[in-house]
Amino acid sequence: MSSRTAPVLVASNRGPVTFRVDDAGQLVSSRGQGGLVTALTGAMQGAGGVWVAAAMSDGDREMVARHPEGRIQVKSDDTSYELHYLDIPQDVFDGYYNNISNGLLWFAHHYLWDTVHSPVFKEDTARAWDDYVQVNREFARTLAEEGARQHEQPTYLVQDYHLSLVPRMLRELQPDALIAHFSHTAIAGPTYLRIIPDRIRDAVLRGLLGADVLGFHSEAWAENFLMSCRYVSGARVDLGRSRVVLEGREILVRVHPISIDVAPMRELAASLQARRLRQQLNRWRGNARLILRVDRLELSKNILRGFLAYETFLRRNPTWKGRVKFLALLSPSRQEIPEYRIYSEDCVREAERINAELGSDEWTPIEVRIREDYLGAISAYGLYDVLMVNPVFDGMNLVAMEGPVLNRRHGVLMLSRNAGAYFRLGRYALGVNPFDVESQAAAIAEALEMPEDERTRRARGLSRLVRANPPSRWIRLQLDDIDRVRRRRGTAA
Amino acid sequence: MSSRTAPVLVASNRGPVTFRVDDAGQLVSSRGQGGLVTALTGAMQGAGGVWVAAAMSDGDREMVARHPEGRIQVKSDDTSYELHYLDIPQDVFDGYYNNISNGLLWFAHHYLWDTVHSPVFKEDTARAWDDYVQVNREFARTLAEEGARQHEQPTYLVQDYHLSLVPRMLRELQPDALIAHFSHTAIAGPTYLRIIPDRIRDAVLRGLLGADVLGFHSEAWAENFLMSCRYVSGARVDLGRSRVVLEGREILVRVHPISIDVAPMRELAASLQARRLRQQLNRWRGNARLILRVDRLELSKNILRGFLAYETFLRRNPTWKGRVKFLALLSPSRQEIPEYRIYSEDCVREAERINAELGSDEWTPIEVRIREDYLGAISAYGLYDVLMVNPVFDGMNLVAMEGPVLNRRHGVLMLSRNAGAYFRLGRYALGVNPFDVESQAAAIAEALEMPEDERTRRARGLSRLVRANPPSRWIRLQLDDIDRVRRRRGTAA
Repeated sequence: MSSRTAPVLVASNRGPVTFRVDDAGQLVSSRGQGGLVTALTGAMQGAGGVWVAAAMSDGDREMVARHPEGRIQVKSDDTSYELHYLDIPQDVFDGYYNNISNGLLWFAHHYLWDTVHSPVFKEDTARAWDDYVQVNREFARTLAEEGARQHEQPTYLVQDYHLSLVPRMLRELQPDALIAHFSHTAIAGPTYLRIIPDRIRDAVLRGLLGADVLGFHSEAWAENFLMSCRYVSGARVDLGRSRVVLEGREILVRVHPISIDVAPMRELAASLQARRLRQQLNRWRGNARLILRVDRLELSKNILRGFLAYETFLRRNPTWKGRVKFLALLSPSRQEIPEYRIYSEDCVREAERINAELGSDEWTPIEVRIREDYLGAISAYGLYDVLMVNPVFDGMNLVAMEGPVLNRRHGVLMLSRNAGAYFRLGRYALGVNPFDVESQAAAIAEALEMPEDERTRRARGLSRLVRANPPSRWIRLQLDDIDRVRRRRGTAA
Repeated sequence: MSSRTAPVLVASNRGPVTFRVDDAGQLVSSRGQGGLVTALTGAMQGAGGVWVAAAMSDGDREMVARHPEGRIQVKSDDTSYELHYLDIPQDVFDGYYNNISNGLLWFAHHYLWDTVHSPVFKEDTARAWDDYVQVNREFARTLAEEGARQHEQPTYLVQDYHLSLVPRMLRELQPDALIAHFSHTAIAGPTYLRIIPDRIRDAVLRGLLGADVLGFHSEAWAENFLMSCRYVSGARVDLGRSRVVLEGREILVRVHPISIDVAPMRELAASLQARRLRQQLNRWRGNARLILRVDRLELSKNILRGFLAYETFLRRNPTWKGRVKFLALLSPSRQEIPEYRIYSEDCVREAERINAELGSDEWTPIEVRIREDYLGAISAYGLYDVLMVNPVFDGMNLVAMEGPVLNRRHGVLMLSRNAGAYFRLGRYALGVNPFDVESQAAAIAEALEMPEDERTRRARGLSRLVRANPPSRWIRLQLDDIDRVRRRRGTAA
């Protein structure tokens, strides 16, 4: 396994550490949460490495200003790596991030458009696309420079749809580079992808095909990608062996579902603060059963239909009135994009309508809390009887994993069949069609009335599946893929 | 070719003949226009046959009332066949036709939903689905009965998305039946198809797979269907050979793009009435160049973005103001469905806005005519300089064929790359992304400024391609497919 000593260079839009300037004018850093950061920093462990990301906060930009090369050393207990933040002008970042990444590619891959009316591509899309190209080029150039500083050939791990052009751009700078790209989103099929302007679609697909290995969270997304590649001129697609050949290079398409990092989450859930929050929540809940959802306030999360399903459930099962509460913990998201602002208002209004129509002085059917509150979510996971995860489409969905490993009531997971997580957890969840309010209402009833032994069996199954696939495994499988490419290339050379 | 004497039984929602009761109380019939009717009645020529359809008009229902078996003999110059109309109760028809066929399946296959908000499936969908099943069963039963009356084994030709369950239902009644089904619409890919309720999706796919041969207008739609079948339990899909095996039966998936029947259309265009309409139009047009669109007022036709593209073109090329006119001939469609009523209003309002902002006392940029006016369209085809056909998604699109064979000015066809017709006519058209208003505006400019020799080359190419594929060829290829199945089955027996 000598290859594991090869340096690892990670690129992602958002970095693992956020900086802010404190009152004394000092830069203070805080590490991002979640399994992805753990997995990717873990990959750099021992091997050394560099993480290239965009400066997102004012503090991040201040860090770059104080370190003219934009690079600082990060050390924690078991890892040491360099952080290289790119300070991108605000207007360029806006085109790259808000307009193309989140306003176009995200919408495409999650089928979010109201196609009869939107999108309408105009000049501003072409301008924003130039920004996207420019930022991707900046990432590729930085990776190539950082790669050239390493003592041996590095492995490049490029993350997600913000950086879909990077593999090809990096390949042009370093033809022999070992490049993996991972898509954390859903991936649209070839017909829907025809919505986006032709040169953007072609550039994105060819950009990704610059990598040696492309990773996805589920077979469905990998398959959609492969089918789209059949329309890339010069590409040969082997659907059965999950490969594409382009310009004499072979690109592997692999499915590696990510999971979560259980230990630190359980530690946090056991903290004094979390216990206090749980006590508060328990008092609030009283004798009622608890339906919980935890989501970004994101168009794809299907919050509206979740409320409608709950309403339908209450109307069909009036004896449950007063005996159940729905808690929606929503964190604000992408408020720069008009559709998101409107959607947030729609969600609140719908909850208020349902509360007004079905609630009473003693009982409020739905409680909506909109704020950034990770600890609140971690605490609430312990208490749910039903966890509602019903996205329209979702690359994976980590809430469906976090809940079951922290829940203490053998709560039932209601899970959209269109989430990547369903392909892994489906057999222990109550699968639902997220567009079918009637069947979601029936699933709520089924979950609340499920016999204890059945709940237990499912809850244990979910927790076991999640724990069996730690993020370290997710990253190891990706590095194994790259090792195979490295060996094959070594043999061929 | 002895098999060609086998009787042909056609089933389609709308029949080839419409009845009305005249002032004297007599039933008067009129034959539907279009290549499909010609092709399918042609298939029955010589062989004899039956066409089963739903009674759509009050006159159709009166015909059924006067012929207790719902069956009458139709004779024209070269054909003789029986017409069997089914009188379906209005409320059942409403569920089958408006709710499921046009409100659900049509929306799914053309990617028309605003997924964040719609669809929301509730009880009424389940009820309407029962209606759809009931009507499909009625069709299957009628076909089986009519088939049993034939002197030898008939060929069943089942048409379109209204009757997707018929192949399987008919197969259950007659296990050895020779069944072809043809889909005239676009077909959604497997991910988008996950929007519709699971049992509906599964029933539709399995329903179609009851046939021996399934026909589509383009490779893209056939491919989407095949990919969806990979999720049908028990089905084995061979994408390369375009086949599915289910329950020991092999189902062929074939691409047969339909074309139009040129001769009668040219005859009509040469009629005195058409000539008069053309003169009127020519006076109205004056010295201006003419951009024409002819469409049903249908969500998938992309009328709004067409107006926006024209507006963008005028703003970018102000010297064209006063020198060009846009004529939109729109026939009312599906006004029972709320989205269609709203869309009609939106289209008119948008045209009025553009006229108010860019027009003058002497010049109105856009003229919108909403009415059923086939002859008007046939006449207008002669006169366009640019024919705009920019559907969001479209199974085939016959306007893109009718225009070029009737146009007399070497007009340019601007054609959506998402229309089935593009796969056949693309190389002589100006291909556009229908969501990209900027590039459509550029295409209008390119079309209007195209040199005469280039216009001529393209116009001739289009006309030649259309004439080379008459509807008789479309039907012959389908009957050839069925003959192959018949022979193979004969050998196997």
